[in-house]
Amino acid sequence: MRALGRHILAEFFECDTHILNDRDLIEIYMKQAAIECKATIVDSVFQTFNPHGVSGVVVIAESHLAIHTWPEYGYAAIDVFTCGETVDPWVATRALQNLLKAKQTTTVEMKRGEIKSDEVLRHKPAITQEVTSNF
Amino acid sequence: MRALGRHILAEFFECDTHILNDRDLIEIYMKQAAIECKATIVDSVFQTFNPHGVSGVVVIAESHLAIHTWPEYGYAAIDVFTCGETVDPWVATRALQNLLKAKQTTTVEMKRGEIKSDEVLRHKPAITQEVTSNF
Repeated sequence: MRALGRHILAEFFECDTHILNDRDLIEIYMKQAAIECKATIVDSVFQTFNPHGVSGVVVIAESHLAIHTWPEYGYAAIDVFTCGETVDPWVATRALQNLLKAKQTTTVEMKRGEIKSDEVLRHKPAITQEVTSNF
Repeated sequence: MRALGRHILAEFFECDTHILNDRDLIEIYMKQAAIECKATIVDSVFQTFNPHGVSGVVVIAESHLAIHTWPEYGYAAIDVFTCGETVDPWVATRALQNLLKAKQTTTVEMKRGEIKSDEVLRHKPAITQEVTSNF
């Protein structure tokens, strides 16, 4: 059985609040993370919110990276979705953890689109998960 | 305890394969889903892949909606991330289920950025989940 995609959801707490409020830096870091995991960047959208926070998505040929930040809580919600064998979403996730200086993290990996022998499994839930935490 | 965001991951199987391969229609449907759940659309990016499939993200003021399709498997991976009380991510998810004509779905809701009394919880995993399935 294989999955068409891997989707990591990461909770980053106690990040650098100045970084979380810096739209341009967030965009640079998100693209850097995409490049580090060997993804091909297709397009991106980044947005500042008033009074706080940044939302952004990097669309990659292998799916996407997304971020939403709450500087007032030192918190960033990250998700890294990749397909194919050449890109490792954990590389991007760990890169962002370092770049945002997150001190507490929880991550969960969801297998997306599980198929067996090139046929979609129709009788079992398709989402499984692995959880890691350094709390 | 409250969560800053709600993140629904939906597995849509046995969708209409023609729709899954139609970039323009996917974009229309994704924006329609955003509007139906009362989100404010900020920007969007949609991309066709060769030979199959569409990837796209609608950035909303309340976070994002993303889709990746594998028409060859009749499969679409959806995620709908919302923050705030005015937007219900389930409304968008159900709208997309209908629009893509998904016959089999599995959905999981992840609470993102759980906080207590305006303080970030530092000693418990921040992701919880609810799963529904019509398999």
